[in-house]
Amino acid sequence: MTLDPAVEKRCRESFARQRAMGSIGASVMSVGAGVCEIGMPFAPELTQQHGFVHAGVISMLADTACGFAALSLMPEDAAVLTTEFKINLLSPAKGERFVAVGRVVRPGKKLMVCLGEVFAEEGGRRKQIALMTASMMVMDTSTGLKD
Amino acid sequence: MTLDPAVEKRCRESFARQRAMGSIGASVMSVGAGVCEIGMPFAPELTQQHGFVHAGVISMLADTACGFAALSLMPEDAAVLTTEFKINLLSPAKGERFVAVGRVVRPGKKLMVCLGEVFAEEGGRRKQIALMTASMMVMDTSTGLKD
Amino acid sequence: MTLDPAVEKRCRESFARQRAMGSIGASVMSVGAGVCEIGMPFAPELTQQHGFVHAGVISMLADTACGFAALSLMPEDAAVLTTEFKINLLSPAKGERFVAVGRVVRPGKKLMVCLGEVFAEEGGRRKQIALMTASMMVMDTSTGLKD
Amino acid sequence: MTLDPAVEKRCRESFARQRAMGSIGASVMSVGAGVCEIGMPFAPELTQQHGFVHAGVISMLADTACGFAALSLMPEDAAVLTTEFKINLLSPAKGERFVAVGRVVRPGKKLMVCLGEVFAEEGGRRKQIALMTASMMVMDTSTGLKD
Repeated sequence: MTLDPAVEKRCRESFARQRAMGSIGASVMSVGAGVCEIGMPFAPELTQQHGFVHAGVISMLADTACGFAALSLMPEDAAVLTTEFKINLLSPAKGERFVAVGRVVRPGKKLMVCLGEVFAEEGGRRKQIALMTASMMVMDTSTGLKD
Repeated sequence: MTLDPAVEKRCRESFARQRAMGSIGASVMSVGAGVCEIGMPFAPELTQQHGFVHAGVISMLADTACGFAALSLMPEDAAVLTTEFKINLLSPAKGERFVAVGRVVRPGKKLMVCLGEVFAEEGGRRKQIALMTASMMVMDTSTGLKD
Repeated sequence: MTLDPAVEKRCRESFARQRAMGSIGASVMSVGAGVCEIGMPFAPELTQQHGFVHAGVISMLADTACGFAALSLMPEDAAVLTTEFKINLLSPAKGERFVAVGRVVRPGKKLMVCLGEVFAEEGGRRKQIALMTASMMVMDTSTGLKD
Repeated sequence: MTLDPAVEKRCRESFARQRAMGSIGASVMSVGAGVCEIGMPFAPELTQQHGFVHAGVISMLADTACGFAALSLMPEDAAVLTTEFKINLLSPAKGERFVAVGRVVRPGKKLMVCLGEVFAEEGGRRKQIALMTASMMVMDTSTGLKD
């Protein structure tokens, strides 16, 4: 589905305000209606004790991809907040680059349920390393939040 | 329960090799038999678009606290790997300091199930902001991993 | 905490309308403010292929205990609906009797987060066999639902 | 992928020993390599207080579909045991008939990660009502379990 350029702009600006994304070197690769792709190169400062990227960093990518997939379908005056997610770590996060794809599975008015997949890329090959399901709450502006 | 000093030393050394923990400013506050506490001060570079600490960073703290709680009960030649976790975000992560407490609920031989709680501290008050359940796999040394 | 008798009555009447609970032989043991206990004797028609009670039946108990724990804290004109839960199965469900305890961890206005624990009882001993976290949505009467 | 008829026979026999599946009126619709479909007609004795099928019953279907999807890829002397699952309930479970589809996403030697989807059918239309992720442990025969 094509996305209204204003919605894409809004998602990219909201992403730019996520300082945590800049800190891990992540960037938005694409945003569509109900879908978002986020990429991040490997960096040694993101690793756990065995040299793989920390599961929490992988979660950040997947959670953010799901959050923007959800935001792309929300009314202009709504903000998005993750209420819960679950991640299955399928393989250790080793690779040159990581890509998280978030998709809205159920675009509810109050809650959106998303599916996130994270892939590791190395030497031109891509392998799925994580699977997430997440709930995103649609917050109205009366909460003081804005996206 | 008191913990063998050798086990505590092993957990703290493994933590020190987690570069991601250093990157977010986290440190081990305590390790006991089946329990671990990790602390982290607020930092603006860890925030999402609304100025709260990113849910993925909160997950990193809880996942790591659970991982070391599990490692503290594992045989000396075993390594720990998270296979899955789920986190419910109870309140936005705002505060001066964040503390994650991980506890082993079921110390199995192959899988350990842990409960993680994350608290935000501000002005001397402490509020729970997240609840995690996690599965930690006991990896034997034949995998090449070591903790 | 003591519970208003009218609230307890409401929870017990709502439970009585859950035909699935009757079908598996479950009954409410207690309801308090934000907590509910549900019991069920073993029955061979609830088993999976190894003779243990099916994980889905254990989930039914825990989900229902969490749901009524949440309902006990909701306004009189609200209905409760589970939006998601996760269960870790700690040990096979064998025993004479099973007890699920649900507790509200975070009593939000729109979402309540609950922790559920299921125990197997055999020969006077009690063992925890499952751990659940669940999100319960507070539905208002405009949805047509009523509890 | 086509499935060895011996593997299909083994899955169907194991299913037939699941008395809980008979109790809710469920049956195997198909088993393939790493995929399984289970169907169940609506029945009033499976409902919760609002007249929808209980979330725990929907979980039973999805968990079982995931379990047999996993079993279809396991060695002949292995048994399957669910260690955890998480389910997002996308819409109330109302319909004439329910179908759960389980698929193996990651066929590990010790753990298999599965994705489960549940659909409600009514008047010839099909709507997804639930999304599950689950971990299935590969149990060897030394545990005394057999499938």
